[in-house]
Amino acid sequence: MSCKPILSILLFAASAQFTSPASAAGPEPITPIQPAQVRNPAMVELGKQLFFDPRLSKSGFISCNSCHNLSMGGTDNLRSSIGHNWQQGPINSPTVLNAKFNAAQFWDGRAADLKAQAGGPVANPKEMAFSHALAVEVLQSIPGYVAAFKQAFGNQKLGMEEVTQAIAAFEETLVTPDSRFDKWLKGDRRALTRKEQEGYRLFKESGCIACHNGPAVGGNSFQKMGLVAPYQTSNPAQGRADVTGKEADRFHFKVPTLRNVELTYPYFHDGGAATLAEAVDTMARIQLGRQFSADENAKVVAFLKTLTGKQPRLQLPVLPPSSEKTLRPQPFDHP
Amino acid sequence: MSCKPILSILLFAASAQFTSPASAAGPEPITPIQPAQVRNPAMVELGKQLFFDPRLSKSGFISCNSCHNLSMGGTDNLRSSIGHNWQQGPINSPTVLNAKFNAAQFWDGRAADLKAQAGGPVANPKEMAFSHALAVEVLQSIPGYVAAFKQAFGNQKLGMEEVTQAIAAFEETLVTPDSRFDKWLKGDRRALTRKEQEGYRLFKESGCIACHNGPAVGGNSFQKMGLVAPYQTSNPAQGRADVTGKEADRFHFKVPTLRNVELTYPYFHDGGAATLAEAVDTMARIQLGRQFSADENAKVVAFLKTLTGKQPRLQLPVLPPSSEKTLRPQPFDHP
Repeated sequence: MSCKPILSILLFAASAQFTSPASAAGPEPITPIQPAQVRNPAMVELGKQLFFDPRLSKSGFISCNSCHNLSMGGTDNLRSSIGHNWQQGPINSPTVLNAKFNAAQFWDGRAADLKAQAGGPVANPKEMAFSHALAVEVLQSIPGYVAAFKQAFGNQKLGMEEVTQAIAAFEETLVTPDSRFDKWLKGDRRALTRKEQEGYRLFKESGCIACHNGPAVGGNSFQKMGLVAPYQTSNPAQGRADVTGKEADRFHFKVPTLRNVELTYPYFHDGGAATLAEAVDTMARIQLGRQFSADENAKVVAFLKTLTGKQPRLQLPVLPPSSEKTLRPQPFDHP
Repeated sequence: MSCKPILSILLFAASAQFTSPASAAGPEPITPIQPAQVRNPAMVELGKQLFFDPRLSKSGFISCNSCHNLSMGGTDNLRSSIGHNWQQGPINSPTVLNAKFNAAQFWDGRAADLKAQAGGPVANPKEMAFSHALAVEVLQSIPGYVAAFKQAFGNQKLGMEEVTQAIAAFEETLVTPDSRFDKWLKGDRRALTRKEQEGYRLFKESGCIACHNGPAVGGNSFQKMGLVAPYQTSNPAQGRADVTGKEADRFHFKVPTLRNVELTYPYFHDGGAATLAEAVDTMARIQLGRQFSADENAKVVAFLKTLTGKQPRLQLPVLPPSSEKTLRPQPFDHP
């Protein structure tokens, strides 16, 4: 445990790149979320349709939005997700909100970016249980999609490259600016109560900020779950080691964003913490070797709730209908 | 089969009440859909949240919108729906679009109206698998819902009565005006092609109009599936007889609306017809004793596609988060 303070200092120093030198509140290790810039509206609109389209799954029932529900903070609010044939997913679904700030995607970082991530669940037999080839075949059979791809990509072939690029373009717009905390960062001193400000001070002084910093208040590093005390879980995920094969990476997970954390319960890679109070208590103990008092815990929780930003205002897409040629969904093995 | 023409004439006469005396196209047995009138916006907005909220299910995964997907014509486009624990539903999910025009709800009409229908799936162990008491307990534990109910209902108690009333108020707004056919009905002669107009003439002259009339082009009567020739299906549903217990009602089902039928595939109570061409062919044979030529079939299908109206423009609701007191979903029996 003696290495803990040094580690915290090192990590905190590493986070200096995220300070915001010009905010009225002074330089802070958390920076405001900027509103989305839409460069290609046709591609973003197409990506939104694909995000909501369950025809990218074998069953015709599961879409990206099923587990990254944009009505619920970009998550499903379940410990682990429900996949094809009601299979229990191996891990808690991370929020898609502000996911563009993540250094890598998935808890173990096995996808480099949003585009690389987007194809994963489609072909995962425990999630959407389809294949890239079949998903593309379905889309190519739907005249409305063929036209939308043409508008977004010109004469490029409609393939999985374009599908994931469009979904990623949509996901890049899923940012949540204008949280009360960001208003405070920008100089509105009355945006936070005294209790919330004290919570933020505790968050920094206790070392939480060492890993949870930058615009997304996390998402930019991998850290060991259970740095100073072991984390007890029945979830078998090994985290980063599953990708690198290195023993040193065992139980290292991507630090999740704390933006909108009020909405993204339950917490941790195994969804093991049902409430923010529980999550804060556990993190303090196993990552920082610190026991927060009830009052301290409540202050940190109060601060965390100020990170809820303006949720994306999305018009529900109307999906183009299948044609007579479209492969029909196969929800049940024996229909 | 000899009774068929007489029956058609009788049914056609019965439909005279639906004629529109003042349309520029002359009196027609189909009348235009009127835009939604919102009387209580707070209640409609609350109903929309409830419609999209999977916390009304035991699993926390299934919402009204799962099977009545407003991105897909108010249906799930599956033969029969997927319920709790991936159970196969007994029947094809009817569209929620224009459902307010239905004389009764469900294929067998067992619910008198939208409000009576809305509570059904929540407590059905094959669908959302929850109970009314638990659903109400969940909502009462969510501060955002408590406030929204107060805004919509004043100091009335938050109970299942109010839940279903709000969902019904939202569903009443789910109408689809301004289809090309309605524009034609209102006098825009160029809104339909010659082929589509010929399809409409065939639709009337062949007798389809006898049951599919009124603003929703159906939904206003029960009819026997297989009037002149038996319908072959492995689906065990007995239709209206399951409600009345009368042998005479065996295999009588509510005539479905044909509004937006281009979007609501597959067709029939068992989802047995994958395409409109197949559905039209089967209906002509078993209800009217008539074999449409390929050309006739194509014309009727072309007409039916003109019934696709303007889909509701809905902003995706942002659901109020659960509190620490909220009962957590139970998607898996063994978590």
